[in-house]
Amino acid sequence: MSIILGVDPGSRVTGYGIIESVGQKIRYLGSGCIRTSGDRLPPKLGQIYDGLCEIISQFHPDYLSIEEVFLAKNASSALKLGQARGVAIVAGVKNGIPVYEYTARQIKQSVVGYGNAQKEQVQAMVVNILKLNKCPMADAADALAGAICHAHAITSLIGMEIGGLKQTKGMSKGRIY
Amino acid sequence: MSIILGVDPGSRVTGYGIIESVGQKIRYLGSGCIRTSGDRLPPKLGQIYDGLCEIISQFHPDYLSIEEVFLAKNASSALKLGQARGVAIVAGVKNGIPVYEYTARQIKQSVVGYGNAQKEQVQAMVVNILKLNKCPMADAADALAGAICHAHAITSLIGMEIGGLKQTKGMSKGRIY
Repeated sequence: MSIILGVDPGSRVTGYGIIESVGQKIRYLGSGCIRTSGDRLPPKLGQIYDGLCEIISQFHPDYLSIEEVFLAKNASSALKLGQARGVAIVAGVKNGIPVYEYTARQIKQSVVGYGNAQKEQVQAMVVNILKLNKCPMADAADALAGAICHAHAITSLIGMEIGGLKQTKGMSKGRIY
Repeated sequence: MSIILGVDPGSRVTGYGIIESVGQKIRYLGSGCIRTSGDRLPPKLGQIYDGLCEIISQFHPDYLSIEEVFLAKNASSALKLGQARGVAIVAGVKNGIPVYEYTARQIKQSVVGYGNAQKEQVQAMVVNILKLNKCPMADAADALAGAICHAHAITSLIGMEIGGLKQTKGMSKGRIY
């Protein structure tokens, strides 16, 4: 059994989603958004860090899964995203949680089965896989998609370990720390 | 008396510089670079965070001064810079140190007296102001320049407070947190 925390960082809204992966089964534990307040950067980054530390202390995740970003819209938005992303990753690292990065394409492939899937298709599959009554907020849904992607990766790993293979195809999907 | 930590963040090299400001006098306490190792992002960000926490616990700075970035070369470098910058700021915030941001122009104006000064002029003035025997590494020199800029700002503040003014020109130079 593994508990996986997915994080979708942002300077104003950081989505998070927690799932439990037992064998082939995935269970929804919770999700939500950390909304930063004020217009000053340092306290906002402190809120993201504290918010994630609180979630980590509540759910004790075994893994943190976060989308790997290659292309941002522009330099200004990349800087803002980078700041929030750096804080989210260090919150995992400082709490001793292994952090895994997956590209948007890997997450779509894993959740929808199609690397070029639309955002709405990903969200619909998140609702379907986790048997939710309604779709969570977009940032939380994206975070849950990242967590599901990692659950699929570790499930592949376990399957292949049983098969006697050490270098696994499943784990190579993401960068492992 | 105030101890000021200047930080020049980067994903590979994070420069830092510590000065002591007593009245109009500025004294050099130390400087250096945190060099991250490995090619994986989360441990690198952890190294930046831990490195700054170590410096903070050694020098107990009253303020952290960091350059405010408006324009990065491109989205990819902005993301990398943002990640390191977010971690540096949150290291200050989590250690209870007020974080101040100054633009490159404000730092140049404060250190050289000319907002469009060249990088080399800034470094030469850092050596001059701090009475150093040789120029520190570029990233450490930039960090020291940020610290000197904040020392000048708080000196102006104290001067104006003595004059009975609460809203101060000096402190308005940077964003205060």
